[in-house]
Amino acid sequence: MTEEKPVVAFLGPKASYTHQATIDNFPSAAYDLSPQITIEDVFNAVQNSTAYRGVVPFENSTNGSVVFTLDLFADLNSKYPDILVCGEAYVKVKHCLLGNQGKFGGGPSTPAIIESPLSSGAVTPTILNPLPTKPSARPIGDLRGIKRLYSHPQAWGQCKSFLNTYLKGVERLDVSSTSRAAEIVAGDGSGESAAISSGIAARIHGLGILARGIEDRGDNETRFFVIGRATTAANGISEHPDTTINTATQNYKSLISFTVDHNNPGALAHSLSVFEKYGLNLTSINTRPSGTENWNYIFFVEIKGRRLEDGEGEGAVNQALGDLKDVCRGFRWLGSWENRLGRER
Amino acid sequence: MTEEKPVVAFLGPKASYTHQATIDNFPSAAYDLSPQITIEDVFNAVQNSTAYRGVVPFENSTNGSVVFTLDLFADLNSKYPDILVCGEAYVKVKHCLLGNQGKFGGGPSTPAIIESPLSSGAVTPTILNPLPTKPSARPIGDLRGIKRLYSHPQAWGQCKSFLNTYLKGVERLDVSSTSRAAEIVAGDGSGESAAISSGIAARIHGLGILARGIEDRGDNETRFFVIGRATTAANGISEHPDTTINTATQNYKSLISFTVDHNNPGALAHSLSVFEKYGLNLTSINTRPSGTENWNYIFFVEIKGRRLEDGEGEGAVNQALGDLKDVCRGFRWLGSWENRLGRER
Repeated sequence: MTEEKPVVAFLGPKASYTHQATIDNFPSAAYDLSPQITIEDVFNAVQNSTAYRGVVPFENSTNGSVVFTLDLFADLNSKYPDILVCGEAYVKVKHCLLGNQGKFGGGPSTPAIIESPLSSGAVTPTILNPLPTKPSARPIGDLRGIKRLYSHPQAWGQCKSFLNTYLKGVERLDVSSTSRAAEIVAGDGSGESAAISSGIAARIHGLGILARGIEDRGDNETRFFVIGRATTAANGISEHPDTTINTATQNYKSLISFTVDHNNPGALAHSLSVFEKYGLNLTSINTRPSGTENWNYIFFVEIKGRRLEDGEGEGAVNQALGDLKDVCRGFRWLGSWENRLGRER
Repeated sequence: MTEEKPVVAFLGPKASYTHQATIDNFPSAAYDLSPQITIEDVFNAVQNSTAYRGVVPFENSTNGSVVFTLDLFADLNSKYPDILVCGEAYVKVKHCLLGNQGKFGGGPSTPAIIESPLSSGAVTPTILNPLPTKPSARPIGDLRGIKRLYSHPQAWGQCKSFLNTYLKGVERLDVSSTSRAAEIVAGDGSGESAAISSGIAARIHGLGILARGIEDRGDNETRFFVIGRATTAANGISEHPDTTINTATQNYKSLISFTVDHNNPGALAHSLSVFEKYGLNLTSINTRPSGTENWNYIFFVEIKGRRLEDGEGEGAVNQALGDLKDVCRGFRWLGSWENRLGRER
């Protein structure tokens, strides 16, 4: 036994939404939380055993799947043979528009609400768009001087309505995270830049909040996966890293990737039907290029259920995987974990 | 009859890959090719009948689906009720690294090959990555002065290996198209910026080519959809815009979107099985957030086959759609068109 706390690697920087998901599940009193620059770095840290667990974003309720994460699970270069999903976490996303204004305009106090024809919030109905979406948030700062916006690419799609109404035509610059966007804006003395980021990032980087809750959907959430490394038991068989599995609850999900022979075009439907055969509900499907041949895909399915470990008997997931083997070209079980949907903080 | 040529709207600007796909299918002698700023503008032009056809990117063989296009087909705000796919086109993507060097270094002649420890092309194997992907392209210009890279977000994912080898750590700025990236670099007198763009963009914007064919996979291709507006016949029934359908060939594909009741988790598998029942091969599946409720999706399937028009009888696609109606919450046929895979220019 050592006194060192187990390391949990997460997609940083500090104050990112992934950091929030990590703190919620791994209290810093008990874990050493280690921010990483890319999602790949998190996978490397876990595969390499420099981290006990990793936390990565998997999908957003408005914007869909995080393809970078899917591509790492696809593992085309066999760099992550031991990575398994062993948990999930949901975090509500509350985007804010952050700028230098709050700083210059009198410290932490909220700037006066500024109304201008450019920021009335009115959206003109047209024949093409008779019912334009009106943003739910209004600026609480003056946006007229903003010439550049920084954020993570996913954020643009989550704040379409606010951006189209109040910041149409303003240049958008993609950076690696919403927190990094806040950092860049904090370092820009011109006052012409703003960031879409979190409230916590405003506090950390000393920025003013020019608008709060600017996402199109107030219930915008991101789902994160906790990844761990499969341990190899004495018998050479990989074991799930989560030793605290609660066998009492049946509320589990599993992630499986598979490829099919694209010269046998019925193979995809056959592969999917094995889950139906064993009563395993498909909760999501994702597709990415297989990396081997053009227009050939790797599929990711999530199903309700848990693969039983050796000695636990033959569950429905085990049986389905047995059948899947015969109809697909190759598959990989990527972990089973307890369903946390509806249990977010 | 008018002398005016039919308008074909495409995702611009000029010299974009979509422009290439458009020229290949709609010769400018017969059509008025009209570049649009966004994919949404192309949908609007066709729905609004200001364009006879539209051309939009749908998926890339390395990077996967274009989610902006999928979201427009999802049509959550019912803005595009009459849009149907009536054709497809494949274009080989050959990315180049463009900079101001060629211009200053003696006009259109190729600059001398510059070797430096920073651009040796050697990729160090590590325990984590014992077989790193080596880029197939080598720089033909000096990349050491490059501090900023501009391109379309999809291009970063297509040129990972070259970028990681020769331009690691250089700031990446996303712009709306690879052609726009070239335009920005052409306007930057500092010489510190470079663009990932096409050879045709180098010519149009007067830039030098610093490296050719820098994409990870030499067979990188993008698939485009040609969209048209369904005409409403006298009987009130929508008709496919493509009146030149070749009934002799059976080589068609169809696109269908559907949603399922997510409280009935077997609904997805049931919906997919109707295609199998009628022997319709699924060639792709895509998923996007449904926009109605979190973790509820709209699915897009592509199948081999063509929906027959009224009077043509009941084909397999028509029968499958009849069955689909009973198992999904809602569906939409988004067009049938001739398969062009393997027939690209």
